[in-house]
Amino acid sequence: MKSDIEIAQASQSLPITEIAKKLELNEQDLELFGSDKAKINWSAIKQAQANQHLGKLILITSISPTPAGEGKSTMTIGLADALNNQLHEKTLIALREPSMGPVFGLKGGATGGGRAQVIPMEDINLHFTGDMHALTSAIDTLAALVDNYIYQDNSLKLDPNRILLKRGLDVNDRTLRKITLGQGSRFNGIEHEASFAITVANELMAILCLATSISDLKQRIGNILVGYSTDNDPVFVKDLHFEGAIAALLGKALKPNLVQTIEHTPALVHGGPFANIAHGANSVMATNLALHLSDYVVTEAGFGSDLGGQKFMDFVSTHLEKAPDAIVVVATVRALKYQAEQSTDNLANENLAALREGFKNLERHMNNMRQYNRPVIVLINKFDSDTEAELNLLQNLIAKHGIDSEVVTYHNDGSLGGIKAAEKVRDLTSQEQGEVMRSYAKDDTIQVKIEQIAQKIYHAGKVEYSEKALAQIEHLKELGKDKLPVIIAKTQYSFSDDKKVLGAPTNFTLHVKNLALKNGAGFIVVSTGSILDMPGLPKHPAALDIDIDDDGKISGLF
Amino acid sequence: MKSDIEIAQASQSLPITEIAKKLELNEQDLELFGSDKAKINWSAIKQAQANQHLGKLILITSISPTPAGEGKSTMTIGLADALNNQLHEKTLIALREPSMGPVFGLKGGATGGGRAQVIPMEDINLHFTGDMHALTSAIDTLAALVDNYIYQDNSLKLDPNRILLKRGLDVNDRTLRKITLGQGSRFNGIEHEASFAITVANELMAILCLATSISDLKQRIGNILVGYSTDNDPVFVKDLHFEGAIAALLGKALKPNLVQTIEHTPALVHGGPFANIAHGANSVMATNLALHLSDYVVTEAGFGSDLGGQKFMDFVSTHLEKAPDAIVVVATVRALKYQAEQSTDNLANENLAALREGFKNLERHMNNMRQYNRPVIVLINKFDSDTEAELNLLQNLIAKHGIDSEVVTYHNDGSLGGIKAAEKVRDLTSQEQGEVMRSYAKDDTIQVKIEQIAQKIYHAGKVEYSEKALAQIEHLKELGKDKLPVIIAKTQYSFSDDKKVLGAPTNFTLHVKNLALKNGAGFIVVSTGSILDMPGLPKHPAALDIDIDDDGKISGLF
Repeated sequence: MKSDIEIAQASQSLPITEIAKKLELNEQDLELFGSDKAKINWSAIKQAQANQHLGKLILITSISPTPAGEGKSTMTIGLADALNNQLHEKTLIALREPSMGPVFGLKGGATGGGRAQVIPMEDINLHFTGDMHALTSAIDTLAALVDNYIYQDNSLKLDPNRILLKRGLDVNDRTLRKITLGQGSRFNGIEHEASFAITVANELMAILCLATSISDLKQRIGNILVGYSTDNDPVFVKDLHFEGAIAALLGKALKPNLVQTIEHTPALVHGGPFANIAHGANSVMATNLALHLSDYVVTEAGFGSDLGGQKFMDFVSTHLEKAPDAIVVVATVRALKYQAEQSTDNLANENLAALREGFKNLERHMNNMRQYNRPVIVLINKFDSDTEAELNLLQNLIAKHGIDSEVVTYHNDGSLGGIKAAEKVRDLTSQEQGEVMRSYAKDDTIQVKIEQIAQKIYHAGKVEYSEKALAQIEHLKELGKDKLPVIIAKTQYSFSDDKKVLGAPTNFTLHVKNLALKNGAGFIVVSTGSILDMPGLPKHPAALDIDIDDDGKISGLF
Repeated sequence: MKSDIEIAQASQSLPITEIAKKLELNEQDLELFGSDKAKINWSAIKQAQANQHLGKLILITSISPTPAGEGKSTMTIGLADALNNQLHEKTLIALREPSMGPVFGLKGGATGGGRAQVIPMEDINLHFTGDMHALTSAIDTLAALVDNYIYQDNSLKLDPNRILLKRGLDVNDRTLRKITLGQGSRFNGIEHEASFAITVANELMAILCLATSISDLKQRIGNILVGYSTDNDPVFVKDLHFEGAIAALLGKALKPNLVQTIEHTPALVHGGPFANIAHGANSVMATNLALHLSDYVVTEAGFGSDLGGQKFMDFVSTHLEKAPDAIVVVATVRALKYQAEQSTDNLANENLAALREGFKNLERHMNNMRQYNRPVIVLINKFDSDTEAELNLLQNLIAKHGIDSEVVTYHNDGSLGGIKAAEKVRDLTSQEQGEVMRSYAKDDTIQVKIEQIAQKIYHAGKVEYSEKALAQIEHLKELGKDKLPVIIAKTQYSFSDDKKVLGAPTNFTLHVKNLALKNGAGFIVVSTGSILDMPGLPKHPAALDIDIDDDGKISGLF
């Protein structure tokens, strides 16, 4: 069996100008990055935004992630390939772009797998069109400007010990989680504690993925809360006048990136915020543009439907020109058995009892998503070890809820691995659609919003707030920021805030520990545990297997 | 008077594919970055390297830098434009690419000025083709891998307090000069002191600019000295097996970047090491490629001729396929008056006495360069305030040494501002050339090398070594590294190691304080003072004036 990078490198890409033609974009509409990648130029974006056409939007989400693997990106890409190449529907993928740091840590890029990949795989995983690097520059330039302001001027009395901004690198480096900087001579600035987070975890990534124009980007950057003065006043970026320079660093990065799948389906791969501390979807720029440029848009939300799916339906879709027309929940037999067994040891063996027990996780996810008043279908990503009996049992269990399902093999077979599935999804999007039923109302208080999500999506019995969290809620009221949407940061492995509780727990207590105002992004991050925003490297980092030959060909990426 | 960015943005660039045609390169030979930037592909590089043709190489160097400005890049670009467009010689520029950090600090990019600029100015100064970002990633990934190795394994007993690698950012941030990392929980790694340097100051930049192929790049990365074990053994990158991954991050960055001047002369803008702690010239890849692709190559060395010029002639040129055929020393009337007056206050007023006194600085530079047995010419970069009498005096003073000179106005007039100068430079390159006379022999000891440069170039009376430096020299002998070339880090403002001593001092003592083995680059950095490798931002950073409009057009860069 060939590895993903071998399949990707053996595939023949079309010139990106040819891919663009499928979207009625010509070479002048593109900023080329080599022959197989491009950014869409502002003139073309504005022209597309002005047209009345809006395609159908298909959201891919999944059961709770497990070490057994779900293959959400593979399903996104495979489904789009099937719509495009088997049903001949004008289809565009909107996908998050990978963070480079993890590529050198645990194996695994984020470009799909097998015959369902976006290419050039090694470029998309390393450097790509420079968006992550532009973000890193913007993050660290902003941090340097702020520290320099305190050192040189500080008429606003910004307290160096109350700076909320973190520095950033697109590298997995645990040693940078907690540092002291400005040490040594006084010419080295003001000594204080600080922290680096991985680039994708920074508020600027969330902002890049929500901004709808450069002026919106600039305004959001200006709204970032930098920290507090010694008089306890909030200080925003606009108070320091750094938003123009930071927006200048990010202007190009705001333009969506066009690539293709192995089967030449066009794909916009742009932006990549986490789905716990941020909203977990590719850029609003890319999805809106895709809706204007094609008839079917397939997009993906991070982690399970309780995290990425909920955030997409309650938050992201309010920024889009339309909400999803259909929701696909991805499941695998292996992952559901893992939900019951909590071990990867015997997943290749038939185990109907474990599957029946683990199904409770899928049951919760698919019924949760149905609450949004959008049609839901389950696609089962088949692994070679799945038995006929297991697949039948799973489809029957799903059907009892009046939800349709299909078994697909996009990984092995490309678009041929799920034509019927693509037809069913297409049919769902043409159903008459009522209003989206969101989990909370825009004007609900912070606590009501949290409790609505906890009840409807997590199925918690109650929500408990730490004293710190209650004080923070009071403070947010004082700032007039208590009506912003909430983004709940929770472990992705469980519906609860305890990563060891798998399946579909009920009546548990959700513990709200901390709130953070992301005023530029326009949301409040509600933490229910400690979420690591700077990963570490493992004992055998993937870097040890990565190499490059004298023609520039890279090997060892997975 | 229009600003540089206004002139650059008002100029009409040709498609980079048209520029490439002038070099007999077609679209398949390019990796495009938009319509006006490209990297040259490996196949085209290898084909060019195989041809027998080598053009003439013209080295641009200058008097000691002052706040009055010399305009070395402007002269490099203007002279190339004159050769290309007025004399119709097939000419290519090889120039260093700018560091982004300083763009947000003190005003000033590094793309020339007035009518002598490389474009697109704002792209080259911000992000460009991602080379600086690839370096930053490589630097910080390597540092993270090393710290992770100590945390997870450390069978080589690498001492966390004796790591020589610095982390890097392309940002001016004084607070990162001295930090403590790995603080807090033990899951945050091993606590130790560390430091960030600006990206261009890292050994990886020097390596990128010296490597002649990806395999050479990988070998040099493997040779980097990481630090020492608790048993006092040196530990190299290859001992940790990280060179493949780091080379993979830098593979694309090793390909030279093609852009154009305002007057459409092709330019390779690639790599940018400092001329104090490194060798101060654009990449060997770019200069060698330029020699194969054109008849005249104009390139530039950093700072004054005592730093960049000496390093180019004694070190860089030994890596090139040929040494320079002519050396141009750039001078301005203003800067020479500053050498005498040490103030910018009255530089616009005629002052023949100050010019005569300040000429001693130029006299030393031009005569030093003549020692290398290559023809030397002085080009005087005319400012509007220069008087006829001043220019006549200066040319007469130069002529007394049997050295020719020309007054040029490339900044205001583009290639028309110095046709005669271009003719004279061309004539110099066609003189019969003897052997280059280098300052020291390859097999000289470290001390002899230092003393030869101190005597012949700096005109020091003697060299004094700190005890630490003497011990380091002993250690380098033990390592068998005592025959490597030396790169002397010295203030750029004076021939001496005291930045306040202007003009042409003699009989001073040069103080050698520290030596550092850059084993991947293949040289020993000899420090004669404290050289800052991480700049800070000024009280009014240029960032405050930088902005971007809704079409992505950037303003406020200078």
